[in-house]
Amino acid sequence: MEVFSFLKNVREKKPLIHHLTNWVTIYDCAQIVKSFGASPVMAHAPEEAADMCSFASALVLNIGTLTTEFIDSMKIAAKRANERNIPVVLDVCGAGATPFRDKKCSELIAETKINIIKGNSSEIARIAGLSVTTRGVDAGEVTRDHKEICTLLAKEKNCTVVMTGKEDIIADSKSVYIVKNGCDMMPHVVGTGCMASSVIGTFAGANPENIAAASAAGLCCYELASELAIVKSDGPLSFKHNLMDSVYNLTEKDILSLQKVVC
Amino acid sequence: MEVFSFLKNVREKKPLIHHLTNWVTIYDCAQIVKSFGASPVMAHAPEEAADMCSFASALVLNIGTLTTEFIDSMKIAAKRANERNIPVVLDVCGAGATPFRDKKCSELIAETKINIIKGNSSEIARIAGLSVTTRGVDAGEVTRDHKEICTLLAKEKNCTVVMTGKEDIIADSKSVYIVKNGCDMMPHVVGTGCMASSVIGTFAGANPENIAAASAAGLCCYELASELAIVKSDGPLSFKHNLMDSVYNLTEKDILSLQKVVC
Amino acid sequence: MEVFSFLKNVREKKPLIHHLTNWVTIYDCAQIVKSFGASPVMAHAPEEAADMCSFASALVLNIGTLTTEFIDSMKIAAKRANERNIPVVLDVCGAGATPFRDKKCSELIAETKINIIKGNSSEIARIAGLSVTTRGVDAGEVTRDHKEICTLLAKEKNCTVVMTGKEDIIADSKSVYIVKNGCDMMPHVVGTGCMASSVIGTFAGANPENIAAASAAGLCCYELASELAIVKSDGPLSFKHNLMDSVYNLTEKDILSLQKVVC
Repeated sequence: MEVFSFLKNVREKKPLIHHLTNWVTIYDCAQIVKSFGASPVMAHAPEEAADMCSFASALVLNIGTLTTEFIDSMKIAAKRANERNIPVVLDVCGAGATPFRDKKCSELIAETKINIIKGNSSEIARIAGLSVTTRGVDAGEVTRDHKEICTLLAKEKNCTVVMTGKEDIIADSKSVYIVKNGCDMMPHVVGTGCMASSVIGTFAGANPENIAAASAAGLCCYELASELAIVKSDGPLSFKHNLMDSVYNLTEKDILSLQKVVC
Repeated sequence: MEVFSFLKNVREKKPLIHHLTNWVTIYDCAQIVKSFGASPVMAHAPEEAADMCSFASALVLNIGTLTTEFIDSMKIAAKRANERNIPVVLDVCGAGATPFRDKKCSELIAETKINIIKGNSSEIARIAGLSVTTRGVDAGEVTRDHKEICTLLAKEKNCTVVMTGKEDIIADSKSVYIVKNGCDMMPHVVGTGCMASSVIGTFAGANPENIAAASAAGLCCYELASELAIVKSDGPLSFKHNLMDSVYNLTEKDILSLQKVVC
Repeated sequence: MEVFSFLKNVREKKPLIHHLTNWVTIYDCAQIVKSFGASPVMAHAPEEAADMCSFASALVLNIGTLTTEFIDSMKIAAKRANERNIPVVLDVCGAGATPFRDKKCSELIAETKINIIKGNSSEIARIAGLSVTTRGVDAGEVTRDHKEICTLLAKEKNCTVVMTGKEDIIADSKSVYIVKNGCDMMPHVVGTGCMASSVIGTFAGANPENIAAASAAGLCCYELASELAIVKSDGPLSFKHNLMDSVYNLTEKDILSLQKVVC
């Protein structure tokens, strides 16, 4: 896959990526978008959540610290995004942890068009209707074949499904991409999953003609940067900062020599 | 004191630590828990604040950016934590700064069982009923003997009291621990106090049989890591990141050679 | 201009700077204030937003993630700040991006006394009544002379106007200061604009007798620190942290040799 061409589009188009996201990792979500050369915005008031979509190229929703009012704003924003036909990413952060999360995820998926559903293995399994439990926001155990879960859910919802993990699976109704980049430090850093959703939104926003491929390319760039970062790092925080810097400095040569995307 | 055994329990049990905390330092609170090897979660919606306690090992409340609604969610969460008998930490951040904070602290302490009350000297003095003023969120002057204040409050409320400062005092009805680790840069970094509460919650959650000792051990590890961090740092931000990395890398040997806990 | 004397006042008086600010960059706003030697506090509940002004030396308002309720709290806080005659800074973050932002900015400026209006070129142009569009929170194009826009707005509103950019313009009814410090990495880091407002509040709070000069001195110190930081940095995140550390370590000698403020 021509991963660099997707990054080139991000850097040249500098898409505006609108977020209604969680309060824990909101800074990192904004900065990862900016490190990639795009432009983040976060506006959750119901009075303007839709208007901010009017010049955005993608919308990223993340339910990490959801409330009823916040989900209402997400619906308002997503409906405008749907009208404008820009990609909507939903990070189903913590799906399966409480009945409230499950209910609100279902509402979002039923009432608006979600183009990309993204989560870890137990979150995606939960959305796919399997009976698994998410322990807080960390992945629980899922025994069924991950690729199969993603493909079935993608067909059922007619969307792209991204399941992150040691290997990321990106499936739509026609293709499945596997991204094998990444490093072992990522689960030790709060926000690496949330940032992945912002990256997916950024790449899908700049490459809307092929959302699944764009999502795979974005995750590849992000995780490849993590490989460059870890060798310079002493622990989780120095790693996170090196990751942000590596994303900013990522070259075509890095990508050509290190990318591991299988289609 | 066998400080390392408490850390070992954190790393082996990987307890889930639920937070209703303030918006300024929420990321750092989550990451310090993760750096210690435990698992943070933050969920403040009234519909799920209690459910998230169902598989948590401790609950950390921090009133730094309180609102009436947020305190209501804290009460809901604390009541479930009380039912499950998991430790509840209350960081009385800014107590004494406004009548609203004082009122809401009193409500939380009266309506739920708080197992650990944590603050700086003027915050704890205020909770103990002394007439002191907290200037924003920084400690004001307190003339009365700190150890006595902690012991009296611990007996009155039948809980553990943690007063942080140059030396930390941890008192319950039976014992008093003094932690003499730490470094002078800590007050120059926003969030070191909030992170201390998350650390206390993490250690109490993994060591619920002796909450005061667990709190002392947690603070010792955290502040000992600060001593390892400061020698590599050029200012407050590099210090904070080295602190997070040092926590992640902390060894039994570090603790044996550097711990300064007096019982 | 005697820039260092303004910084000296900050370090000696350690003013308390109250904030009602946005959730994306709230940590960085708090830390930059602390790195300068002052004391940040953030309290947005309507029940205490005014009380926190009672011992504050300045109030910083930032509408980045505004809601109707949040703006109501800002009004409450600003009215108390006005009574006490402490400087109020308004960062009109994203003005021009949505009708809701424009409306709420107008309300704040009409219903309370704002001493310092701060924004990028398109935000300030919008507040001055020019028909420009802000794309999310990044500056759009403004053709009219920037200095003229600032001076006219300052006279109209009888306040200080700060327009940040490659060169910062600080205008009140009598003087115009230009700050030529800074570095090219600043727009690649989320929060550098928000932090600038906190810096302005900090310097105005410690030097209330000349708000325009204090704002210029504060921006000069902040951006001069960015020049010291960038030479040690590998990308946007290492830069941000070096900036915070450089602010903390800033010396009179640095300022004397590097400051570029024109009056």
